[in-house]
Amino acid sequence: MNLTKEQQQEIKDQQSQKNSTKRVTAPELEKILYEALPVLDHGFIRVVDYMGDDTSVVQSARVSYGKGTKKVSTDSGLIKYLMRHWHSTPFEMCEIKYHVKLPIFIARQWIRHRTANVNEYSARYSILDKEFYLPTNENLAAQSQNNRQGRGEVIKGDQAKQVLDLLKNDAQRTYENYETMLNQRYDGSTIDENKIGLARELARMNLTLNTYTQWYWKTDLLNLMNFLRLRADSHAQYEIRAYADLMLDTLKKWVPITYEAFMDYRVGGTEVSSKGKEIVKKLIKGEKISLEDSGLSKREWNELMNAFDLNDKVIE
Amino acid sequence: MNLTKEQQQEIKDQQSQKNSTKRVTAPELEKILYEALPVLDHGFIRVVDYMGDDTSVVQSARVSYGKGTKKVSTDSGLIKYLMRHWHSTPFEMCEIKYHVKLPIFIARQWIRHRTANVNEYSARYSILDKEFYLPTNENLAAQSQNNRQGRGEVIKGDQAKQVLDLLKNDAQRTYENYETMLNQRYDGSTIDENKIGLARELARMNLTLNTYTQWYWKTDLLNLMNFLRLRADSHAQYEIRAYADLMLDTLKKWVPITYEAFMDYRVGGTEVSSKGKEIVKKLIKGEKISLEDSGLSKREWNELMNAFDLNDKVIE
Amino acid sequence: MNLTKEQQQEIKDQQSQKNSTKRVTAPELEKILYEALPVLDHGFIRVVDYMGDDTSVVQSARVSYGKGTKKVSTDSGLIKYLMRHWHSTPFEMCEIKYHVKLPIFIARQWIRHRTANVNEYSARYSILDKEFYLPTNENLAAQSQNNRQGRGEVIKGDQAKQVLDLLKNDAQRTYENYETMLNQRYDGSTIDENKIGLARELARMNLTLNTYTQWYWKTDLLNLMNFLRLRADSHAQYEIRAYADLMLDTLKKWVPITYEAFMDYRVGGTEVSSKGKEIVKKLIKGEKISLEDSGLSKREWNELMNAFDLNDKVIE
Amino acid sequence: MNLTKEQQQEIKDQQSQKNSTKRVTAPELEKILYEALPVLDHGFIRVVDYMGDDTSVVQSARVSYGKGTKKVSTDSGLIKYLMRHWHSTPFEMCEIKYHVKLPIFIARQWIRHRTANVNEYSARYSILDKEFYLPTNENLAAQSQNNRQGRGEVIKGDQAKQVLDLLKNDAQRTYENYETMLNQRYDGSTIDENKIGLARELARMNLTLNTYTQWYWKTDLLNLMNFLRLRADSHAQYEIRAYADLMLDTLKKWVPITYEAFMDYRVGGTEVSSKGKEIVKKLIKGEKISLEDSGLSKREWNELMNAFDLNDKVIE
Repeated sequence: MNLTKEQQQEIKDQQSQKNSTKRVTAPELEKILYEALPVLDHGFIRVVDYMGDDTSVVQSARVSYGKGTKKVSTDSGLIKYLMRHWHSTPFEMCEIKYHVKLPIFIARQWIRHRTANVNEYSARYSILDKEFYLPTNENLAAQSQNNRQGRGEVIKGDQAKQVLDLLKNDAQRTYENYETMLNQRYDGSTIDENKIGLARELARMNLTLNTYTQWYWKTDLLNLMNFLRLRADSHAQYEIRAYADLMLDTLKKWVPITYEAFMDYRVGGTEVSSKGKEIVKKLIKGEKISLEDSGLSKREWNELMNAFDLNDKVIE
Repeated sequence: MNLTKEQQQEIKDQQSQKNSTKRVTAPELEKILYEALPVLDHGFIRVVDYMGDDTSVVQSARVSYGKGTKKVSTDSGLIKYLMRHWHSTPFEMCEIKYHVKLPIFIARQWIRHRTANVNEYSARYSILDKEFYLPTNENLAAQSQNNRQGRGEVIKGDQAKQVLDLLKNDAQRTYENYETMLNQRYDGSTIDENKIGLARELARMNLTLNTYTQWYWKTDLLNLMNFLRLRADSHAQYEIRAYADLMLDTLKKWVPITYEAFMDYRVGGTEVSSKGKEIVKKLIKGEKISLEDSGLSKREWNELMNAFDLNDKVIE
Repeated sequence: MNLTKEQQQEIKDQQSQKNSTKRVTAPELEKILYEALPVLDHGFIRVVDYMGDDTSVVQSARVSYGKGTKKVSTDSGLIKYLMRHWHSTPFEMCEIKYHVKLPIFIARQWIRHRTANVNEYSARYSILDKEFYLPTNENLAAQSQNNRQGRGEVIKGDQAKQVLDLLKNDAQRTYENYETMLNQRYDGSTIDENKIGLARELARMNLTLNTYTQWYWKTDLLNLMNFLRLRADSHAQYEIRAYADLMLDTLKKWVPITYEAFMDYRVGGTEVSSKGKEIVKKLIKGEKISLEDSGLSKREWNELMNAFDLNDKVIE
Repeated sequence: MNLTKEQQQEIKDQQSQKNSTKRVTAPELEKILYEALPVLDHGFIRVVDYMGDDTSVVQSARVSYGKGTKKVSTDSGLIKYLMRHWHSTPFEMCEIKYHVKLPIFIARQWIRHRTANVNEYSARYSILDKEFYLPTNENLAAQSQNNRQGRGEVIKGDQAKQVLDLLKNDAQRTYENYETMLNQRYDGSTIDENKIGLARELARMNLTLNTYTQWYWKTDLLNLMNFLRLRADSHAQYEIRAYADLMLDTLKKWVPITYEAFMDYRVGGTEVSSKGKEIVKKLIKGEKISLEDSGLSKREWNELMNAFDLNDKVIE
């Protein structure tokens, strides 16, 4: 990750602020506020603003339940209860805003989470940075043979080199041709004084999907957790997971009690279907179970067995 | 507006906080943070949290437009430009949270603004306060004769007294019967030790729609302005306008530049239809206009004439 | 449920339509289209329009996965897969619209589901019907002693009679006073020719929360299931569950395959937290478990035991 | 636009459906249902489903206003009234679903309209088509000199040829290298039996932004109009406008009365700010106006003069 001098100065200025407020603050999050945390080869995430903390969740819940919540003595107990029973609206009462630099193909996955506010760098107005994502060697995975959307083993040797060369050369060439069409280089200098440049909104179409873009992305605590549940999951594409993993850290610094409940009930938990429950009941009673009698597909059967570490019952 | 001692203490505690933060702050808004601003006879609004200020709008816009915004020299110029051209996403980057006490029939109007987060006091869990809205004499308006959803002249004398008595007595009686059914008084004391009370989720159905409820309501700056545009408008019901007017003040304290642009382009502005434009063009040229040739309905014609203070052209 | 002659005629007219379309249709749902299905004492739900069926879910999923879905041979297998893995967007591709008549206190719960479109009868414009909800004897439940938002045993005898009388008399009296204030009776006739009536937007505040209102409510299949999951649940208030139960029937008629997957994975399923999984693993292995070592609260422990019918392990 | 035989057959099958329904239908829209309407060089839009028509808007509005709407005699009058006064919820009661094939850089603009449902072809699961957008000669515009996001004159001659060659060659080469990395050709054939292919989710990053993707996109009538208002506007990028223009035609076929009101009040109308109103009032009275006294910026002044065709008052 390379920050321009301008960006470094902006971050320094932001971090040197010391304002007084009557609002609640999240001291651990304040420590890393505005900091550019590196992700992938040129990306970053920065927490640039937030509103509320664990006590804000509790406060809203207590307004809802009124005198009725007095019995639940601790904040932690109440937050766990809310998480377990999907009483989700109190978690909407906190808000966070990130500045993210990320490859376009990842931005396209990310944007599908609609309950968020976004301001993206516009390539209609301005020229995109000359930066594109190239996977590291250990992330250069082959297509999985049994999972249509997954990765298999790592590609090595000559083929790895070939792939990386192709990615790199194509990104570079298309970017240079982008400059040629614009008649302008990334640094703003004109290439040929006697020519006019193609409209930026057209020239951008020549860029490859690993070109980096950036945006401000703001969401509430509930929708952040919905995002992280999907994107920090092992089935998510590695490149978006790299962002989500780092955001999990910021979640922990921001709302540590909510984070703990989230990890217990959402990330580390599992869902069991109606048919799955019957199997688990039999397993507990020590009764015999079989795929045939279960009503489950083989795939579903294996997912259930894996969820409870019953590796000997997984069917190849 | 009567606050309980408990509430007064809570507000005092919140206001005595003095936290240090690297986030941007809105100094004018900080001054009234947590304060209960009275509305109607028992209602209030309190700003309980916020995120961002005018510079946050600008910051997001500059990320979008990149180097392309350098030409727009001032924050004020940029905010005006955004407002005028409905570039609305930068206004979503600020967030505000209110604690509101309001009559149920107003809450039912308010909740129709869906892009907001809400935690309302639950009458399934807890007993509602013994407080209900009664209009002041000058707000006791008759049904408008020419506007199906509007108010006409003020009702006076004996009829006014009768209406207020009916409202007061019915609210009081239904509340007392609510207590009887619950077998519990508002202060929590049991009425008859030998009886069990009706479920709160059922007993509440006996209350009248002017009973006060309360909620935490959080929204972003764009949607706050959408709310205020409709609800601070002269066509809005007086009782919700009373809240909206006060919220306009908080908007001004929070984001003064955005407030000014909002008043100029949204609140004080007008829309002119395609057909209306033709009329205005003719008026400017000094040409003759007539309802018949305009393609407008009489109502629409009058709305247009009123918008430009052409009172002599309004048709009865 | 009483329908006016006008309403009966409207329904008859709607049902006698026989239009030709190239769109997919849901034959079982067509059979009950427009029909007013009674709920509670005066309420109803009517399916008044819909878009798509099970094949629309499949069609969208196949567009997403492209050639990659060829392996999943059946529509049913694909829908189950989508449901199990929370691939929720294909379920957003179907839409349904209901006309619902319901008490206001239930409407207030219902409206909290924000991802829906609503047009409610406006008491600013028009006079509300003289109809209010009164529970039947078997639904006149006492407040639960151990669940703040639940019901306990049924109230009987004199106290039941007293409660019903209070509810009935208060609703009737407040409605009559509403008419007095409006100076207009429900049938539209003026009460006193020499008086003007109070504005409708004010008079309505005198009505009790069991007064019936009505609305058109439109949502997509995914959000309908989210609604039903919460509102057809045994913890939901009986009065909204009565609506949800009937809507489950319409779901089955509309999209039978999705319905089946929904019942298996959502309604009949359970969630197990990270800590809960450890307990279940021990139970399967026949190891000893105890509340103390589990890290669960007593309440959570009991929820887990109940989920798997381990009644002997529930702790009082 | 080239459709595969498979697609042609699917469309034929869909169009040959003749189902009977009690739902309202839009006969003009039925005529083009499922048809692939060509846009740009390889794109298309197809209306694949819809719900409701103009009468559905009216029906919902009449439920809201109750007996209060009886005075508005015609459907057309009511729809105009709703449009003029931003009573927007009745327009949410209709729904439409499109199948769209479009270049990725346009998809990225389009997706910013969040209130819609989307299922996009996934390049994690499947290989993208070998099709990319190349502008026609008359759309090969230079960057505007005075509008950061606009286009200027058309680029011609050698430079035009050079630009088109660059776009074409880069798209082709990057696609071929995509195939090489996948070790699979577009038709599904394996390139080298002794190699494994790179994961699809990685290989796709090599494609340029003018590669075509496709999706199902569903929205309600209100949000469709919000989309069209922005994207059929002369300031929208030509390539998305090409889609929006065609969608305007489908809007007209679907809900002709709403379409007419939309064109009059939204598309053909204009907004006048508070300060702008003062200028217009002076113009009507024949009073002198000047930029200096107006409080407007030069840009805003010109926008106002252009809106009312006062070309002689535009200031260079």
